[in-house]
Amino acid sequence: MLKVPQNQVAGHQAGGGKLGPLVDDSGHFYKPLQGDERGSKEVAFYTSFSLNTKVPDDIRKFFPIFHGTQLVEASDGSGLKSHLVLEDLTLGRVNPSIMDIKIGSRTWSPQASEDYIAKCLKKDRESSSLLLGFRLSGLQFYTNKESVFRKPTRKSVQSLSAEEIKLVLKNFVSSNTSTELESKPDCAFASLVFGGPTGILSQLFELKSWFEDQTLYHFYSVSVHMMYEKRLASEGRNPGAEIKLIDFAHVDEGRGVIDHNFLGGICSLVKFISEILRATDDCPTKACSKDAQKKHYITDNGIN
Amino acid sequence: MLKVPQNQVAGHQAGGGKLGPLVDDSGHFYKPLQGDERGSKEVAFYTSFSLNTKVPDDIRKFFPIFHGTQLVEASDGSGLKSHLVLEDLTLGRVNPSIMDIKIGSRTWSPQASEDYIAKCLKKDRESSSLLLGFRLSGLQFYTNKESVFRKPTRKSVQSLSAEEIKLVLKNFVSSNTSTELESKPDCAFASLVFGGPTGILSQLFELKSWFEDQTLYHFYSVSVHMMYEKRLASEGRNPGAEIKLIDFAHVDEGRGVIDHNFLGGICSLVKFISEILRATDDCPTKACSKDAQKKHYITDNGIN
Repeated sequence: MLKVPQNQVAGHQAGGGKLGPLVDDSGHFYKPLQGDERGSKEVAFYTSFSLNTKVPDDIRKFFPIFHGTQLVEASDGSGLKSHLVLEDLTLGRVNPSIMDIKIGSRTWSPQASEDYIAKCLKKDRESSSLLLGFRLSGLQFYTNKESVFRKPTRKSVQSLSAEEIKLVLKNFVSSNTSTELESKPDCAFASLVFGGPTGILSQLFELKSWFEDQTLYHFYSVSVHMMYEKRLASEGRNPGAEIKLIDFAHVDEGRGVIDHNFLGGICSLVKFISEILRATDDCPTKACSKDAQKKHYITDNGIN
Repeated sequence: MLKVPQNQVAGHQAGGGKLGPLVDDSGHFYKPLQGDERGSKEVAFYTSFSLNTKVPDDIRKFFPIFHGTQLVEASDGSGLKSHLVLEDLTLGRVNPSIMDIKIGSRTWSPQASEDYIAKCLKKDRESSSLLLGFRLSGLQFYTNKESVFRKPTRKSVQSLSAEEIKLVLKNFVSSNTSTELESKPDCAFASLVFGGPTGILSQLFELKSWFEDQTLYHFYSVSVHMMYEKRLASEGRNPGAEIKLIDFAHVDEGRGVIDHNFLGGICSLVKFISEILRATDDCPTKACSKDAQKKHYITDNGIN
């Protein structure tokens, strides 16, 4: 039985008779193929990537598992439609806090059409992409069991300044239970989520190393999808902090050149997260709650 | 007594009654201020940079020393004109081999005028900037005492493919004495010039580390100027491999964000040079002359 996913924060969304992705109970995510060449490009990428022996095994974990394509009943009631069958990234998660961040100051391939380039360039300039090297494309903050703060894809979210994106990232790892962004978030879970050997910063560093070397693909308009479970973090348990790359409708072959556009964006994101983490580590009693800080150290030593 | 510099490979050049930079015998390079805002922006950058205590000392070596501005007789005979007074980067060099590489897939600041952005974007797309993250803007290969191969700034030089730029970089560190690019350069001096603790790759890594962290400046349309003395390399002596950053007419304040555009370009250049060096190290008898390889190892141990 296919249903509308609960934790999608960006992109086309199913429900209300609209076309969007579906999930089943066995951990599959069904993404309808976009009618234009984006659909075929995304299938081509997943097919190429899944067969490419030059991709290191420890890099594959950052990509959704690909199970091929399948005809399923589309969510808009239009009948059977071809869908990408992917891993459901939120399987087993109860109330994940999520941020989707579109990486790169440029979201267009040099090979795209003039119309498409003009459209993307305008959006890159109006959003934060050009300045920051990335833009926020969706987020969902878990606050408590009853209320989930979700901010959908909106122009205002996409065009945050450096100070504003820093505030969102701090709120992402804070213990606040308000349904709005707090102006002085406590960053209680910064060390637990961003830091440590399995935290988000470590994972971004792994990706960064690969991007400094890989000349297989150029990833335009691809997002980093960051997740963790705030409830577990607040209990001092391993919050399952994880990043995945998603949305591959605009991937080119690398042809002997690294993806300097994606790499630059990742480095910029790394810098923002490092700064938050450094401020937290430098000043634990001020920037973090003492308890959460303590729990972090325990977690870092493998005791969850 | 001011004179026309002998080793300038890109930019406006003096001589033949044209306006261009001049040098004196005491190691100063006089660059005429460009009449539009580029001149004032470059003075503003050098002034800010020279006073900025946040710039680490070991990073300053990559920038020409700034001695202020001075009114001197312009090279086009138009009378006294304001010039930037900088360090003459080729002072003491006899026949330097030089490559100037403009870094960044984007050469325009988000704050530039629409006309200027359109002009730069067109050039970035037509040249190799967009694809490679940098473009060659000038080069000079020393071949022997009598003949110097110089290739001036030309569209064909600026729009090299990945394979072509690799070939130019290989020729740059090869022992060929032809006045044309060789299709199978021997890379005899690759280890000596690119490799080792004082080689160009090490210097690029130092720059890269700083760019991963610094949020002081965004460097648009800035070039890496690489130099070494082939004659010394062929004698197995320290060839004085050195990089400097030049041309700061389009520098913005960083405002809390790293220069992801410049960083991406530097990483791409690093990848090209690393590949050449790796091929040389993997296969010394094939890619390098045995003698030069041997001399390199001696140099690496401090014996020049």
